[in-house]
Amino acid sequence: MRIDIMTLFPEMCEAVFTQSIVGRALQTGKLSVSAVNIRDYSADKHNRVDDTPYGGGMGMLMQAQPIYDCYRALADASETKPHVIYLSPQGKVLTQQRAKELAGYDHLVLLCGHYEGVDERVLEEIVDEELSIGDYVLTGGELPALVLTDCIARMVDGVLPNEEAYSQESHYASLLEHPQYTKPYEWNGRTVPDVLVSGHHANIEKWKRQESLRRTFLRRPELLENAQLDKSDRKFLESLQKPAEDLD
Amino acid sequence: MRIDIMTLFPEMCEAVFTQSIVGRALQTGKLSVSAVNIRDYSADKHNRVDDTPYGGGMGMLMQAQPIYDCYRALADASETKPHVIYLSPQGKVLTQQRAKELAGYDHLVLLCGHYEGVDERVLEEIVDEELSIGDYVLTGGELPALVLTDCIARMVDGVLPNEEAYSQESHYASLLEHPQYTKPYEWNGRTVPDVLVSGHHANIEKWKRQESLRRTFLRRPELLENAQLDKSDRKFLESLQKPAEDLD
Repeated sequence: MRIDIMTLFPEMCEAVFTQSIVGRALQTGKLSVSAVNIRDYSADKHNRVDDTPYGGGMGMLMQAQPIYDCYRALADASETKPHVIYLSPQGKVLTQQRAKELAGYDHLVLLCGHYEGVDERVLEEIVDEELSIGDYVLTGGELPALVLTDCIARMVDGVLPNEEAYSQESHYASLLEHPQYTKPYEWNGRTVPDVLVSGHHANIEKWKRQESLRRTFLRRPELLENAQLDKSDRKFLESLQKPAEDLD
Repeated sequence: MRIDIMTLFPEMCEAVFTQSIVGRALQTGKLSVSAVNIRDYSADKHNRVDDTPYGGGMGMLMQAQPIYDCYRALADASETKPHVIYLSPQGKVLTQQRAKELAGYDHLVLLCGHYEGVDERVLEEIVDEELSIGDYVLTGGELPALVLTDCIARMVDGVLPNEEAYSQESHYASLLEHPQYTKPYEWNGRTVPDVLVSGHHANIEKWKRQESLRRTFLRRPELLENAQLDKSDRKFLESLQKPAEDLD
């Protein structure tokens, strides 16, 4: 799989690649990631890539031409038409499910906006999908592109040690993770829950499941709607909903 | 304002600081950001910071001691008790509103998890707030901490040119942004919408507002529930809901 990030700040992206899961993925050869400098494609003699907005307003907009020519260079060098994603607060909000689907593409091109935005015409021309990483405003698309790359990279076959490593994780199964504990057994006057040192495998799994359900119920109850729950899960959740009666 | 990021990958964070809004904020002296290496606080002779989870399971967990001692060093050097945020998929999902509130703190400490998670006991001991940047899984807390830092930094007084620069932006007013256009007037056979070159200020503002409403209605209708809408906004939204009749 190949991911190209179109950006005005390629060095920022590259510094993150080398120190993250992406770096490991690059070494395995399962993934190729590069940051491409949009400014290198400016037709302006001063390498300008931005100008003022029509109709007035604050700030500067990125112009269509450098972005389009940068994209054409990437697309022309690619065997398949790349899937182009524009990272912006106007996009659909990224989910784990969408990231999993994107991990199946051969070639993604991620466009990072900057300044106050991008000329709409080039978005209409080249962008297949607009994605937001959340309902908050950032300075540019670089961090969102890096978030998306990290999220996708770890789902590319062969990047993580094995499938189990991510299949049990948060949100993958729509539940939050249970609390976790490591050595030493006692730290700062606090010990590990008894069940986890009992050696009783079935009880441990039951505890993990119930703590995962409890945490989801307390912190993000709306996630339970999409979770796969069995009869005993539902019974446990019902017991959480009536603490007052239990205390009587 | 001061933000300390507790991480196992300080170089990744620093590379992003220098090339982003954070870099500009640092120069103005309005914000101080640093990345602190948790590994420097390991009491283990091999500088280990992780161990296997109690109760079994994949991967390694970060141990309590190095994180706690790293936090104590930061807190002891601070005049006020820092507000400690743990970036994790188990947290509340970050919103622009929460970021705005956080921009009012004097000292934030951001804890980045890695490996499969962090010993729960140190979280109970030091963490004031658990935040997630979205419902997807990443390799570590560094990118979320950088996202949060960028989001907060741009709202610290004096970092952006003036308040207008962010107050009109997406989500700040619960609406998506209207399309934007810059030079040249004609690009690739596409021209800028007539109204934006009309010079008629009131019509331009009306167009921007309506395109912002249209985009929000089409892409993220749930955002309209929290938007501040006047009578003409509501009338325009109603007109969008009955296109079939208009076409008759």
